Amino acid sequence: MSETEIATATEGLYLDDLHVGQRFTSHTHVVSEEQINAFAREFDPQPFHLDAEAAKRTLFAGLAASGWHTAAITMRLLVEAGLPLAGGIIGAGGELNWPKPTRPGDILTSPARSWRSCHLVLAPNAGQ
Amino acid sequence: MSETEIATATEGLYLDDLHVGQRFTSHTHVVSEEQINAFAREFDPQPFHLDAEAAKRTLFAGLAASGWHTAAITMRLLVEAGLPLAGGIIGAGGELNWPKPTRPGDILTSPARSWRSCHLVLAPNAGQ
Repeated sequence: MSETEIATATEGLYLDDLHVGQRFTSHTHVVSEEQINAFAREFDPQPFHLDAEAAKRTLFAGLAASGWHTAAITMRLLVEAGLPLAGGIIGAGGELNWPKPTRPGDILTSPARSWRSCHLVLAPNAGQ
Repeated sequence: MSETEIATATEGLYLDDLHVGQRFTSHTHVVSEEQINAFAREFDPQPFHLDAEAAKRTLFAGLAASGWHTAAITMRLLVEAGLPLAGGIIGAGGELNWPKPTRPGDILTSPARSWRSCHLVLAPNAGQ
C-alpha cells in the first residue's frame, strides 16, 4: 500500500489524491416536517417553516425548510461521505442558490440543489 | 395612527414603509462552546467544531463555530428584530463570506460579518 493510499484510508484525500473526473457521492437525507419545525424554532422562526397550516397562506403555499437548514444538511452530507478531504472541509465564503423550496419528504444529496458552488480551502493539519 | 403605522406595528414593513437611511438593529447573541458543539454534532461534525483540544491541531488553531451555525444565528437575529418585513424574510440566494472564525464567547449581531450580502425577496402574504 502506497503512502498516498494509507493517507487516503486514514485521513482523507490530499491535493495529490485529486484528479479530474473523480466523483464523490454523498449519503441521502430525508427531510421530515419535525426536522423542519425544530430547526426553524431555533434559527428561523417564520410561519412558513414553523406551521404547515399557516404556511399555506404564505409565498411558499405550504411548509418549506429554512434555506439555512438545507445548507446545514448539505454540509453534513459533504462531511460524512461527500468529499473526504484531509484536514477537513473549510470554506471562506461561497454562493448559495435556493431555486426551489425543500418540502417534508424531500430527499437531499450533496452537492444538493441548495448549494451550487462553494470556494473550498483544502486545509492540511496544522501540525504537518 | 396612519394605515402604514398600523401595518408596521402588526405585520411588519412593506415596500412603502422602507426609505433610504433606515437602519435596523438586531439583538445580540453570545455564542457558547456548548452551542458550537451541539450544532456541529448535528450538521458539521469536524474536529475544529466538535472538540476544543483537537481543534488546536487544525487550521483554526482552536474551536470555531461552523459557518452554517453563524449563518443560522444571523438569520435568527434578522427574523427576531433585525429586518421586520411583512410576509417574512425569504431569500432565493446570496453570497456568504466568513473572513474570521467565530469563537466561544463571541457576540454576533445581524447583519453580521458572517453574512455580508443577500438577495431578499419581499414576500407579501399570499392572501392579500
